[in-house]
Amino acid sequence: MIELRKPYLLFVGDISKRLHAKTAFGIRDWSRDSCIGQFRFSNAAVDLGLPDLGPEDAAAQGAGSLVIGVAPIGGQIPAAWHEGLIAAARAGLDIVSGMHMLLADIPGLGEMARASGTRLIDVRVPPRHIPVATGRKRTGRRLLTVGTDCALGKKYTALALTEALRRAGANADFRATGQTGIIIAGSGIPMDAVVSDFIAGAAEALSPDASEAHWDVIEGQGAIYHPAFAGVTLGLIHGSQPDVLVLCHEPGRDHFHSFPDFPLRSLREVADSCLDAARVTNASARLGAVSLNTSSLDDAACAEALERASAELGVPAFDPLRTSMDGAVASILGRHDARAVVMPAVHPISFGGSH
Amino acid sequence: MIELRKPYLLFVGDISKRLHAKTAFGIRDWSRDSCIGQFRFSNAAVDLGLPDLGPEDAAAQGAGSLVIGVAPIGGQIPAAWHEGLIAAARAGLDIVSGMHMLLADIPGLGEMARASGTRLIDVRVPPRHIPVATGRKRTGRRLLTVGTDCALGKKYTALALTEALRRAGANADFRATGQTGIIIAGSGIPMDAVVSDFIAGAAEALSPDASEAHWDVIEGQGAIYHPAFAGVTLGLIHGSQPDVLVLCHEPGRDHFHSFPDFPLRSLREVADSCLDAARVTNASARLGAVSLNTSSLDDAACAEALERASAELGVPAFDPLRTSMDGAVASILGRHDARAVVMPAVHPISFGGSH
Repeated sequence: MIELRKPYLLFVGDISKRLHAKTAFGIRDWSRDSCIGQFRFSNAAVDLGLPDLGPEDAAAQGAGSLVIGVAPIGGQIPAAWHEGLIAAARAGLDIVSGMHMLLADIPGLGEMARASGTRLIDVRVPPRHIPVATGRKRTGRRLLTVGTDCALGKKYTALALTEALRRAGANADFRATGQTGIIIAGSGIPMDAVVSDFIAGAAEALSPDASEAHWDVIEGQGAIYHPAFAGVTLGLIHGSQPDVLVLCHEPGRDHFHSFPDFPLRSLREVADSCLDAARVTNASARLGAVSLNTSSLDDAACAEALERASAELGVPAFDPLRTSMDGAVASILGRHDARAVVMPAVHPISFGGSH
Repeated sequence: MIELRKPYLLFVGDISKRLHAKTAFGIRDWSRDSCIGQFRFSNAAVDLGLPDLGPEDAAAQGAGSLVIGVAPIGGQIPAAWHEGLIAAARAGLDIVSGMHMLLADIPGLGEMARASGTRLIDVRVPPRHIPVATGRKRTGRRLLTVGTDCALGKKYTALALTEALRRAGANADFRATGQTGIIIAGSGIPMDAVVSDFIAGAAEALSPDASEAHWDVIEGQGAIYHPAFAGVTLGLIHGSQPDVLVLCHEPGRDHFHSFPDFPLRSLREVADSCLDAARVTNASARLGAVSLNTSSLDDAACAEALERASAELGVPAFDPLRTSMDGAVASILGRHDARAVVMPAVHPISFGGSH
């Protein structure tokens, strides 16, 4: 498992467009206590609303890592950033990146990291020596988000449910399977980069034995009927041994993103197929709730979409950005007061970010 | 795609146990025309029944590669082999290995290969730059073997069906997805070593567009309900876009190999689940036949097992080592003379090897 050293100094550098700082905003929103400051080259750069700090001051205040949460187009690390990253390594910070370009390819950075005893961590690169799955049933409880497609709210839903379960008194941890999630959580495994024979094994390693009342809330990946990425999804389901699945969907999306010839399956089909897969390793797996990304709908259409999804699946429906999750949490925890549907706009939103 | 240079000089070295030369025998049996000779250190070594040749003589007779088809316990390449492998590289042969130890780790071999312009090919290592799957429907026809478990005859069945389709006048090629299959075919992709985001993309690359009457017969991997390896299976199904599935099973096997707590599903469940997956990328996918490994059964029990499997699935049943495949071939080709079941021991076996 990748393990990061918190707290973070969030690197902004010279990035001036909010869109290119999406990951940094997500980290700030979901892991605010872990963010000690932002490192900007000038006031023209995006402001995350965190204290401006240079690497040395951040290190003096206890920062463990500099995190690159911005991405210029192309995924390369600009030469203008090199000096700042080397300064961070010199100050004793680990350098954490989700970019395609590897940190070790920055001239001089590897040498500085070795000299100062810090680490260069590319969160797209999985840990070595992941074992083959054993299928051994682990202790503790697990929730996995699954979806009708990619990129419609599986990470956001898992993060929001982790917070909601905690508010309801449960002991819950978010388990990250993608790069942004890993930085937010401070640990995780980038599932899509794991060699295919080891997907289920990686998922087993991600959520180890825990106390019986503890919930691991696992970030889903891909989609079981996705023409390109379903293998990741199935291995993640098997290795996660989920007690509860939460199905994520975006009403109005009728085909797979970037695959216009491939229509989405019905919520019922996707739920049944995921449950069938989950029961390979956990015979008591059940559907706990359905999470909708209703950002394109007005309140009336949102309420109707939630009611329809809840009726189709027989579980509570919610939008983590828009509605209460109380019914879903009760259903997940197996409490009797689970309501089938919660109407929009009755609950204050605690966290920002986007789907 | 990995592409090997045939014909082969099969390396036996000092291996004296037939069990440790299983891959070499498989290559000889399934790709006899590609085997120019065997390279043994002495007459005490296993005899594949091929001419004894040293690397220089083999190269003079046109050999393209030396293939290591033997495996001492542990998967390491013994020091006693190094001189012979370096001599083969010096003679201009590519060196092909399916061992866990990489060829480049043999002292002096990399230098010799560079000096003589030959290649070191580890068939466990997938090619670079495999693309993400597109789902684009390709021309030509495809058959994929699937199984209730690993290690019960998916490769053997695919090889036997390729030969049977050719005997029936069809234009067919075996498409390899594992190391032994890749050496037999001379090309292929080791699916279980591909990064999980690219499994379906690798399967697409493995069986490119072909003429409409051409059949690619694709070696299956894993099993859709397997607790460790199902991700590979699902990605392979999606990327292969199979017109026809052939389900492989070993009667009497009641749980997954090495997973005693995981019972096998019924043939019907496995077939339905694989067909549901196949129809994501090929709406007309159908089950063509069922292949049984009946090596542990007497003739009466074999006949009963074939009848039962055929009745359960409504397609012809066969054992590629024991029965005619005429009914299966007719079913696969969509011919009207497809018979439901063919009794054992009525057809001469053309090829050796083991399941």
